[in-house]
Amino acid sequence: MRKVYLDNASSTPLLPEVKEAMMPYLGEVYGNPSSLHDWGDAARMAVDEAREKVAGLINASPEEIIFTSCGTESNNLAVKGIALAAQAKGKHAVVSAIEHFSVLNAAKTLEKFGFEVTEVPVDKYGVIDPEDVKKAIRKDTVLVSIMHANGEIGTIEPIKEIARTTKELKIPLHTDAIATAGTIPVDVSELGVDALSLAGNQFYAPKGVGALWVRRGIRLMPLFDGGIQEGGRRGGTENVAGIVGLGKAAEIAKANMASRISQLTPLRDRLLKELPVKVEHVVVTGHPQNRLPGHASFCVEFIEGESMLMLLNNKGIAVTSGSACTSRALKASHVLIAIGLSHEIAQGSILFTMGLDTTQADIDYVLETMPPVVERLRQMSPLYAKFTKAGKGGQ
Amino acid sequence: MRKVYLDNASSTPLLPEVKEAMMPYLGEVYGNPSSLHDWGDAARMAVDEAREKVAGLINASPEEIIFTSCGTESNNLAVKGIALAAQAKGKHAVVSAIEHFSVLNAAKTLEKFGFEVTEVPVDKYGVIDPEDVKKAIRKDTVLVSIMHANGEIGTIEPIKEIARTTKELKIPLHTDAIATAGTIPVDVSELGVDALSLAGNQFYAPKGVGALWVRRGIRLMPLFDGGIQEGGRRGGTENVAGIVGLGKAAEIAKANMASRISQLTPLRDRLLKELPVKVEHVVVTGHPQNRLPGHASFCVEFIEGESMLMLLNNKGIAVTSGSACTSRALKASHVLIAIGLSHEIAQGSILFTMGLDTTQADIDYVLETMPPVVERLRQMSPLYAKFTKAGKGGQ
Repeated sequence: MRKVYLDNASSTPLLPEVKEAMMPYLGEVYGNPSSLHDWGDAARMAVDEAREKVAGLINASPEEIIFTSCGTESNNLAVKGIALAAQAKGKHAVVSAIEHFSVLNAAKTLEKFGFEVTEVPVDKYGVIDPEDVKKAIRKDTVLVSIMHANGEIGTIEPIKEIARTTKELKIPLHTDAIATAGTIPVDVSELGVDALSLAGNQFYAPKGVGALWVRRGIRLMPLFDGGIQEGGRRGGTENVAGIVGLGKAAEIAKANMASRISQLTPLRDRLLKELPVKVEHVVVTGHPQNRLPGHASFCVEFIEGESMLMLLNNKGIAVTSGSACTSRALKASHVLIAIGLSHEIAQGSILFTMGLDTTQADIDYVLETMPPVVERLRQMSPLYAKFTKAGKGGQ
Repeated sequence: MRKVYLDNASSTPLLPEVKEAMMPYLGEVYGNPSSLHDWGDAARMAVDEAREKVAGLINASPEEIIFTSCGTESNNLAVKGIALAAQAKGKHAVVSAIEHFSVLNAAKTLEKFGFEVTEVPVDKYGVIDPEDVKKAIRKDTVLVSIMHANGEIGTIEPIKEIARTTKELKIPLHTDAIATAGTIPVDVSELGVDALSLAGNQFYAPKGVGALWVRRGIRLMPLFDGGIQEGGRRGGTENVAGIVGLGKAAEIAKANMASRISQLTPLRDRLLKELPVKVEHVVVTGHPQNRLPGHASFCVEFIEGESMLMLLNNKGIAVTSGSACTSRALKASHVLIAIGLSHEIAQGSILFTMGLDTTQADIDYVLETMPPVVERLRQMSPLYAKFTKAGKGGQ
């Protein structure tokens, strides 16, 4: 059976070059980067080199990069770290309604520490209006956290415009760039943000490594108190092999970004265009154009998404219905609810995320496989029976 | 030149079997363990298997294991997580004076949140008296955190006896077992603790992975809010390859523990006995017998430890003068001060930690190399000049 992995948003495979770069650090170079001897020096130099490469990917200074264990850690360190360090100034934070749970739930934790949190809404494409962010800011706001792009619906947010306001008001702006860093150009100066999260498993580095960039001068309460690693902002022995992999993946992503975008965008556009033709009652979610290059997301009406994933898996196709971090929670996505979809429609969410291995033949296979799968599920669906009985037309 | 790595406390090399076990998860098995398809299932099964192996190492239930990114994360999650979750009951915690900074500084952060922290002292061998822990406990104590063994001086603490008190008083007892888990038998039931930290890079698994075991029923405020991974106690995509490596290393450590201890103990004892004979004015730090098997620590008087490390490094010998996490901070160790050494003597701290590759020939080389190195440094030492001028005898 054909095997088609279209769940790169959940995790990308490692590039062979990345794996190869990591190998010495799972072998002969085993020193602790903090150790004061040759074994430690070899590890520390590798970490420093990776730091430069990761900084290079986002046009930042290496010493402003904090290596973390994943995007979730980066988001938690940013949201809780910046807000708690600034709590003497004020106890209010602004986030969007479609942030990842690592931002939303971190903001909920801030509430336990006496903070108030304002959630900015989005339009039907999931776009945040910079004016809404401006309105949400108060005198006691100490942090704004708005994602660069949404991993579930692919929409890219107007961070640069939002940053104009936060800069003017001198409020730190964090952006969760986990879906964008390594995928589309991300330049911290151009965006005008003050902190930015990224994760390796989104751009062909291993799981278990990420980074938080924090502009010099922004105070941070660490999540990991301990040693003096990462400038005292994140204690703990470094994941040397993972960090080296992240560096290598960053270097390659920067060099190949334009060609990757040119490769992925037509695949995405084909799926966005053809799937709603092949299958009735399918709506595209997220912005039709201003979205991540390899990202096509839909809601298939009258269908329970998890069953669709199972049947597609049986046909060799890997997809998801939302964020991998909550896929086992089996709840309607807060993102789809925020863009105004009903719980019923949101249930039929499906998300195809293409990667460097994806071919036109893979898309052919998806377009062939989807109609009978959807047909079969609809035959079992009481909602669909009700709908066809009523003789209503499609959306 | 001979290369002798005697800094296994800072980080152990990977076992070839561990590296081999990890390889598929840096290659063909790249799914996200949370994903609902075959790619995800393969990763999830690997994580589950590793969870069983890590639980097996410490005689715990697999579902009570939380995978983390390092020992520092485990300690922070335990100390802050347990105390902050229980703060409605009380705001007092007890730690020992010789805890690692990931416990001590986490306790300092608790103070920022209104907690009071009592530090229990140690005797000249670094042993904590269970009676002192008992005395330190108050009505509002919600956490006791005492390490299983100290990584700098090797002393093993009477955790079982301390647990008798905490159990009686129903106060959660966390133990930092980073220096012991995988090295000497650690059984959570036998110890009677409620939470226990361990780290992979202490027993031949990679850097960047650790675990916290928390007994069922103990509430925990997560450090990483986000997805539902690790039972909601630690969001974030799992470091699958690292976790698999930790599992494999745990399995091997359990199987080979007795033979490893038999291998390391005579090497340690030889160094503990012979170095103070070969070099004048050398004192053993930590307990003479009740200490970690591969661990020999000393203070070399009239010497500045960092210079000694440098010279030994030039001779191909890797050692440390304390915790790797703070070695670049170049301060006298709080552990050595706590056992009653003066700042002057604590400066000359040196720590040899043997591993599976260490041979008697390595110890020969150390015993040969140390006297001229110390001699050379003492010739440059104004303290030593003063001492010899005064014509005083040795200690």
